[in-house]
Amino acid sequence: MVVRISIIGCGAVGSIFAAHLARLADVEVWAYDVNAGHVRAINESGLRISGAADFTVSVHATTRADEIPRCEFGIVATKSVHTRAAIAAAAHAFNDRSAVCSVQNGVGNEEIIAEHVRHVIRGTTFPAGHLVAPGHIAYDIVGKTWIGPFEPSGTPMILVSALADLLNHAGLATIGMPDARGAQWSKLIFNASTNPVGALTGLDHGAAAKFEPTGALFDALVDEGIAVAKALGITLHDDPKQMIRFAADAPGKHKASMLQDAEARRLTEVDFMNGAIVRMGEQAGVPTPLNRAVWQLVRGMEHSWSNS
Amino acid sequence: MVVRISIIGCGAVGSIFAAHLARLADVEVWAYDVNAGHVRAINESGLRISGAADFTVSVHATTRADEIPRCEFGIVATKSVHTRAAIAAAAHAFNDRSAVCSVQNGVGNEEIIAEHVRHVIRGTTFPAGHLVAPGHIAYDIVGKTWIGPFEPSGTPMILVSALADLLNHAGLATIGMPDARGAQWSKLIFNASTNPVGALTGLDHGAAAKFEPTGALFDALVDEGIAVAKALGITLHDDPKQMIRFAADAPGKHKASMLQDAEARRLTEVDFMNGAIVRMGEQAGVPTPLNRAVWQLVRGMEHSWSNS
Repeated sequence: MVVRISIIGCGAVGSIFAAHLARLADVEVWAYDVNAGHVRAINESGLRISGAADFTVSVHATTRADEIPRCEFGIVATKSVHTRAAIAAAAHAFNDRSAVCSVQNGVGNEEIIAEHVRHVIRGTTFPAGHLVAPGHIAYDIVGKTWIGPFEPSGTPMILVSALADLLNHAGLATIGMPDARGAQWSKLIFNASTNPVGALTGLDHGAAAKFEPTGALFDALVDEGIAVAKALGITLHDDPKQMIRFAADAPGKHKASMLQDAEARRLTEVDFMNGAIVRMGEQAGVPTPLNRAVWQLVRGMEHSWSNS
Repeated sequence: MVVRISIIGCGAVGSIFAAHLARLADVEVWAYDVNAGHVRAINESGLRISGAADFTVSVHATTRADEIPRCEFGIVATKSVHTRAAIAAAAHAFNDRSAVCSVQNGVGNEEIIAEHVRHVIRGTTFPAGHLVAPGHIAYDIVGKTWIGPFEPSGTPMILVSALADLLNHAGLATIGMPDARGAQWSKLIFNASTNPVGALTGLDHGAAAKFEPTGALFDALVDEGIAVAKALGITLHDDPKQMIRFAADAPGKHKASMLQDAEARRLTEVDFMNGAIVRMGEQAGVPTPLNRAVWQLVRGMEHSWSNS
């Protein structure tokens, strides 16, 4: 039996998932993306991955969600700001026995997916890359993926384990677990600290971590996030401050994705990072003045692009 | 008897002061500035003001502080980041009967001036303009000036009144008062709210005030500044939130001076605005997390200019 998996949003991260899964003999991969050039190149010459792994595979790619056939699994890898439109368009491909997993940044994506799909899987992934050319993705960073049931949709653990098995067989180290919130919130708190500071100052990660004023702001933002996670009963899988120091010692200058968005004047994921921490802090009765302030500033920055 | 007044820093604001004072028959004005083109143009063709007033006057201008003769008064109008170098260079022009008045943004300039000059006057000014061409300043905004003794230097009120009289005769509405801190802190809190938000987001003042997220951040920053002023026993002369709304309704798009600095990649006055509020909040036992955060972000932004 062939397992069909659709990748909703086939940018750098989505392509890394698509390419690895497509190497499995019993898996058929459908890549859905709005980038027509990338889709055309994949259909004509296959999807090429280089860097941490180097291979080219055949993948079905389309810009038209209605062409996606019924799938056992979906993996959503769009920017968070596009989750709603993407899953609304692709929802027809999933039934009550399917499960759709978010591997996106921030929190709040699973809630949106669950408006359209019966079984949702909460996911957090560390692999990263960038588009080299249409059909060709550089696989820059190897990392683990953590997945677990999205609690409100009561996704059976057997679906989580089945997806984890497929990903592990495909070469993407994946841990299926009953509660994936600790891994997700560790990355959320890391991102909600480093991303807005990078976007607002223009500093790469290492420079911001090592410059005393911004390094102190990183820590202060992390402290608020940790307080919210604690109030929600979430046990963090990693210490976000250690993640910051570890990333700061990596070679090269890495610009946070939100800084890349700001430089390209693309809508950022701030609502799914700091906005989510503020919203969930309010629900838990935990004040988050600094996350609110950087959220307000990034929203203001986005507003300036349409105002100038 | 001729009164000699030197203007230390003859940019837009300094030139407005210099030009008005130079129209008085019994006043001799010396303008000291590092902008050689502006100084040369003033010496060759006089200092021209246009806009809210329109006239050209003869002013002594120099880039060499040692050429400034003994003066009865000094008016410091540099950007705050240049106060230390400017007054150190010009200090020889003042003796124990002279008084030097700051009309700069932020707080902390009087402290620096007092390291070099016996009698210091605390000042806050609202007139504003911009350089049109060397020797020619556009006088954009008419406003009052508030001056009073800098408390630690025990400046006699008679010196404050004498300077206020000269400025009023010159056409610059000036109020001399025993305690000018209320006027200075009103403008400080206004600036410490609107300037970093403008610089970090790129929004002009009106757009930032009217956009809900940044408008709310304006108010939250103001609230911290008001709490510090209150703890210091300072009664604000104006309500900074009213100043924000009033300025937001002014015609045209006004970019905060710190946004202009950011666009030109010039060191900003953030240390004399938010940095000062944080420092004085610490002394008074008042927490200022938001002023600290925007100070950290603006310092990070400045750091990125030398890091990229």
